[in-house]
Amino acid sequence: MRQVRVLALSVALAGLTASPWAQSRPAKSWDETFRTLPQPANLKSYMQRLSARPHHVGSAYDKENAEWILAKFKEWGWEAEIERFDVLFPTPKERRLELVQPAKFTAKLEEPTLVVDPTSGQKTEQLPSYNAYSIDGDVTAPLVYVNYGRPEDYEQLDRLGVSVRGAIAIARYGESWRGIKPKVAAEHGAVGCLIYSDPKDDGYAMGDVFPKGPMRPSDGVQRGSVMDMPVYPGDPLTPGVGATPDAKRLSLSEAPTLTKIPVLPISYADAQPLLAALTGPTAAENWRGGLPITYRIGPGPATVHLKVAFNWDLKPIYNVIARLPGSTFPDEWIIRGNHHDAWVNGAADPVSGISVALEEARALGELRKQGWAPKRTIVYAAWDGEEPALLGSTEWVEAHTDDLTQHAVAYINTDGNGRGFFNVAGSHSLERFINGVARDISDPETHISIWKRRQARTIARGPADERKDARERADLRIGALGSGSDYSPFLQHAGVASLNLSFGGEDEDGIYHSVYDDFYFYTHFLDTDFAYARVLAQTVGTAVIRLADADVLPFEFTDLAETVQKYVKELHDLLNKKQEDIRERNRQIQDDVFTATTDPRRPQVPPKVEPVPQAINFAPLDNAATALVDSARHYEKALAAATPRLAGNTGALRALNRQLRQAEPQLVDTAGLPNREWYRHLLYAPGFYTGYSVKTVPGVRENIEQGHYTDAETEVVRVSRALMRLVGLVDSASADLEKLARE
Amino acid sequence: MRQVRVLALSVALAGLTASPWAQSRPAKSWDETFRTLPQPANLKSYMQRLSARPHHVGSAYDKENAEWILAKFKEWGWEAEIERFDVLFPTPKERRLELVQPAKFTAKLEEPTLVVDPTSGQKTEQLPSYNAYSIDGDVTAPLVYVNYGRPEDYEQLDRLGVSVRGAIAIARYGESWRGIKPKVAAEHGAVGCLIYSDPKDDGYAMGDVFPKGPMRPSDGVQRGSVMDMPVYPGDPLTPGVGATPDAKRLSLSEAPTLTKIPVLPISYADAQPLLAALTGPTAAENWRGGLPITYRIGPGPATVHLKVAFNWDLKPIYNVIARLPGSTFPDEWIIRGNHHDAWVNGAADPVSGISVALEEARALGELRKQGWAPKRTIVYAAWDGEEPALLGSTEWVEAHTDDLTQHAVAYINTDGNGRGFFNVAGSHSLERFINGVARDISDPETHISIWKRRQARTIARGPADERKDARERADLRIGALGSGSDYSPFLQHAGVASLNLSFGGEDEDGIYHSVYDDFYFYTHFLDTDFAYARVLAQTVGTAVIRLADADVLPFEFTDLAETVQKYVKELHDLLNKKQEDIRERNRQIQDDVFTATTDPRRPQVPPKVEPVPQAINFAPLDNAATALVDSARHYEKALAAATPRLAGNTGALRALNRQLRQAEPQLVDTAGLPNREWYRHLLYAPGFYTGYSVKTVPGVRENIEQGHYTDAETEVVRVSRALMRLVGLVDSASADLEKLARE
Repeated sequence: MRQVRVLALSVALAGLTASPWAQSRPAKSWDETFRTLPQPANLKSYMQRLSARPHHVGSAYDKENAEWILAKFKEWGWEAEIERFDVLFPTPKERRLELVQPAKFTAKLEEPTLVVDPTSGQKTEQLPSYNAYSIDGDVTAPLVYVNYGRPEDYEQLDRLGVSVRGAIAIARYGESWRGIKPKVAAEHGAVGCLIYSDPKDDGYAMGDVFPKGPMRPSDGVQRGSVMDMPVYPGDPLTPGVGATPDAKRLSLSEAPTLTKIPVLPISYADAQPLLAALTGPTAAENWRGGLPITYRIGPGPATVHLKVAFNWDLKPIYNVIARLPGSTFPDEWIIRGNHHDAWVNGAADPVSGISVALEEARALGELRKQGWAPKRTIVYAAWDGEEPALLGSTEWVEAHTDDLTQHAVAYINTDGNGRGFFNVAGSHSLERFINGVARDISDPETHISIWKRRQARTIARGPADERKDARERADLRIGALGSGSDYSPFLQHAGVASLNLSFGGEDEDGIYHSVYDDFYFYTHFLDTDFAYARVLAQTVGTAVIRLADADVLPFEFTDLAETVQKYVKELHDLLNKKQEDIRERNRQIQDDVFTATTDPRRPQVPPKVEPVPQAINFAPLDNAATALVDSARHYEKALAAATPRLAGNTGALRALNRQLRQAEPQLVDTAGLPNREWYRHLLYAPGFYTGYSVKTVPGVRENIEQGHYTDAETEVVRVSRALMRLVGLVDSASADLEKLARE
Repeated sequence: MRQVRVLALSVALAGLTASPWAQSRPAKSWDETFRTLPQPANLKSYMQRLSARPHHVGSAYDKENAEWILAKFKEWGWEAEIERFDVLFPTPKERRLELVQPAKFTAKLEEPTLVVDPTSGQKTEQLPSYNAYSIDGDVTAPLVYVNYGRPEDYEQLDRLGVSVRGAIAIARYGESWRGIKPKVAAEHGAVGCLIYSDPKDDGYAMGDVFPKGPMRPSDGVQRGSVMDMPVYPGDPLTPGVGATPDAKRLSLSEAPTLTKIPVLPISYADAQPLLAALTGPTAAENWRGGLPITYRIGPGPATVHLKVAFNWDLKPIYNVIARLPGSTFPDEWIIRGNHHDAWVNGAADPVSGISVALEEARALGELRKQGWAPKRTIVYAAWDGEEPALLGSTEWVEAHTDDLTQHAVAYINTDGNGRGFFNVAGSHSLERFINGVARDISDPETHISIWKRRQARTIARGPADERKDARERADLRIGALGSGSDYSPFLQHAGVASLNLSFGGEDEDGIYHSVYDDFYFYTHFLDTDFAYARVLAQTVGTAVIRLADADVLPFEFTDLAETVQKYVKELHDLLNKKQEDIRERNRQIQDDVFTATTDPRRPQVPPKVEPVPQAINFAPLDNAATALVDSARHYEKALAAATPRLAGNTGALRALNRQLRQAEPQLVDTAGLPNREWYRHLLYAPGFYTGYSVKTVPGVRENIEQGHYTDAETEVVRVSRALMRLVGLVDSASADLEKLARE
């Protein structure tokens, strides 16, 4: 679902030092054997099969793909089954968009068939371009251009004296997740929202357009969900529980995650006449796109008629769940997933990822034939319904929360994959572990390790502090997870330590969520020889095998503790900066700076004086972060000392691993985040006003950002307690290890 | 000549403190009376008259305007005359530009007549669009897009493995002065150069195009000189001497300031088919303009035929020189100028400025009728030939160098004027003086002082350090002068303390140097009610009167000294940054960072290892700057103590003022700057590779920038000596004042 553009990982210079979890590599080096198995030819054939026809939720080919995947798992020796849920999934009944003033223009809302591209014309099976979970609506109103439609864009509109109240907002794709645009527009009183792909962002400005090049053609449209997923993902009618046949369901009108206003995505060919008909203030430089027009804000005189109506049906989704049972610790599960549903043919998103998961599954089956028996149970999942709302993964997690609490060790996710640099984000308790994996994987283009190549990228592009980190810190820095793919329910609802892995950063494309994301496109413009599909399979498979076979689970807390300290410093800095900025702005208002500098031909509205934020008592958080640093170091030392005694001591290992599996859940609070209880992780969440992008320590950070300083202080205490719970757990594990070492 | 976009002035909070040069305000407050005299209706009528027909060098109306200006000066009671020089001024004989591969396209090279704009169709008198002082040429070669054509753009081309050798470079206008683009292209081996106006920079991206709005229409072309003026301005055939009938002239082939390759400016309508026909690497984001195409670098396959041929004639230029003789110190001259020639009708450039000078002259004549007799001689100059090469002012300064050395107090320049904020740049010995003037002028839009409004702008837009300066420093910071108008020969060749004044910053336009810069345009889109023309007349007239009537010339050195310290710190920082950057880049090259991060589909060429710059002995400069701080403070104190004794003491005043007039010349070295001896000021020069933009302490700064560290150290010594000469002079004046105070 998520478009991979940003590289989420920094890297480090030093080699892997000898450490207790080096033992997680199996004696027979099964992971080395594994890495010889993935084959580009297989990866290509899976993609060709899975992307041959449109396979969105509820389509015939979605079900066929699920059944084909099921059959493959079984063929490769896995226990496998399809687990079905029934979820709300609206599809378009009517879509109409017209400019009615000052001239007439009817939007085409149609992506043309291209002769060279054999699947682009499968019209009878394609979903038309739309934004899922828009409400029905029929509105005629003046248009206002809102740039990317973020809260800060509305602050600029306020300065210009322009309001979207009663208007239709037109926002461009990019910068924030699409669902944020109608949400913020509605909060400001808009009655409708259009979202268009500007050629500056993924069209001709970036390169030749498809089919000549990989960028978005003039009629290309980005489909996608606009559900309010920062409140909760999954079926809107069954929050917190699996959408099983007997689940209690909200009525449509009760569902809080549908949009408040009608929304429609459009192409730049359809957007240009609308934007060109706006008058009002000229858009500032960072509001201008790549169309050959003067970007203006409005409101009007462009007046637009927008009508959308949907079939509000429940549709079946088919998760394929496959298992290899563990030999030693069968009750400990290593879970690995990628979705199989697409908006249309979805060769890049998600087939480039699910193909990799399948090739891993084939190779793991092959290893078993060679005599390998994983110590832990391995669960592979091919999720359905990720595109609309992480439906398959969310409903499954909600239906299996108790299982996960008892059994889950970690969840590894992938989604679309590309060519270039290794990206990893996730739980920082797995930072050192995934660094170890990355050091052992060879990059197909440069033949250095993917770790070394990523380090070079950070050195080449990063600011000085990141360069220094990359050269001197023992481990790669991994990113934190927001949302945008199926890790969200595992990490942020169930508290399962998670990682999200991919390669990318070399190719740009403009076919995301369009009919052109297909086999022809992928094999002409992206990872055309499946070299990076192979290397992703090698990477994930290596991680799965090491997690499955490790004596001591490779959780580690010194990197986590240092990262938490970094976040805490960011929170201090954020508050300081807000105080400084507001103090400075108030001073300027009081000194008449705004009235003195305004141009009478282009008058601006001065901002209002705001109270300067009060100081916040960060001491509990500062102390907890420091305590975690000490606790993590202590554990590291205790584990090293006890390692000789742990070898072959299954009881002690089981006890230690039970504690380690409880580490991530200590960071979870079942009361959830302020105003969105589904999200329970106190360190990581998608931003309430960014959508995909992570907000770390979200309860504190977002309250500061939104000016709720008292609430921020309350959250400081809650996060501190969670950190102290983790300290307690780690200290207890250390004490047990020290006792064992003394025995 | 120079397009006014950048605001060159910072401001300060404190009021004018009682100071010795407060006395420069005449007892009868003639300057207050003066400020009531300028009339918008007059300003408008001068503009209408002077811009009624094209009036470039050599045209009939250029001469008619000179004669009309002469008559006006005489009418207002001035002694006035026309002073003629004969200079090389090429005009087009043939201009041809075609795309010959991969398709045929012939450029129009023509700005259409617009029905609403009565002077846009004066075809028989208009100069066609061209770049003056391009050599003749007839070349056919592949095209390469070079962005703004600056040296750093060629570094990017090197990384991409693209060379302009044997190619025609196409650069967009902006960022550097236009003459730099063919100069740098030729240095890199290009055989021709096109310069086009991208719509992102002054076309539709910025606003509606003319005649609907003020931005550049698709066929609009920016004319302008491409002579190598950073070597020397003025007649290419008579460097350093006035172009009088008997002057020794170089032959055309000896003239070093003509371009090395043929050059032609074009519109974006003509540029688009050429740029669209390029392939090769996609331009990076900051290389992309606003055309609806994918910007690519080339080289080719676009192949272009460029042919230009010129009439290489000598043409007469007519400077109008007018005088009001001084009553007390007739041998001390206050000089004030603005050019009168234009590229076409030139309502904004230069008529919006020369009209102001005329209205000042009328008002000063009026003051004389009321009984005012300026103590010093006032010289007003209406320069010809500024557009091609600062011809009129340069030849006049070269012809009158001895007069200037003996008599000149200061030179005040204006050029085109607009609406908004007060801009001032010039000699920092006049910084405090011009601050005092600005505090007494009222802004017509906000009715606060122009000083206060400029302060507010700096606070509103500046970074924290500039905000702090603006609030806490006693005076406005004024900019330093590079080039682009007639102050250059006064300040940088003759060493006359100079100021350049204007208003601007509220309106953008795209008619610069086109046929549309005319009365219709100006009165629809710029300072339409001539309110800022009036306020510029008030500002300059006040400055002229105060300079003419001051007992003690208002030169002051504490601001200069502090500014020099700032420059010296910048030089330290520049060297440190170069050392760090080169050290870092070398490390990355040696660590294979470039080869590790290159994309095999878009290979880049790693940069080469460079020696890290050696340390430079800045001590002489540090010491001289410190000495100047002490010396300036000392003078300030000595002047305050002696002021009672100076009153009415004409002999002492004459002696002191002689010393003060010698201050700026101490910063001059007749040996000139390295490789360009015409430029003699050691603190201020236009950049050798920027053209208009100033390089302060140019001998040191440019040698560091260009990697000539030994030469930089030599220049450190030379600049230090100049500063110490100034210290000696100021100390001598202080000693004389102390002696006087003791008498």
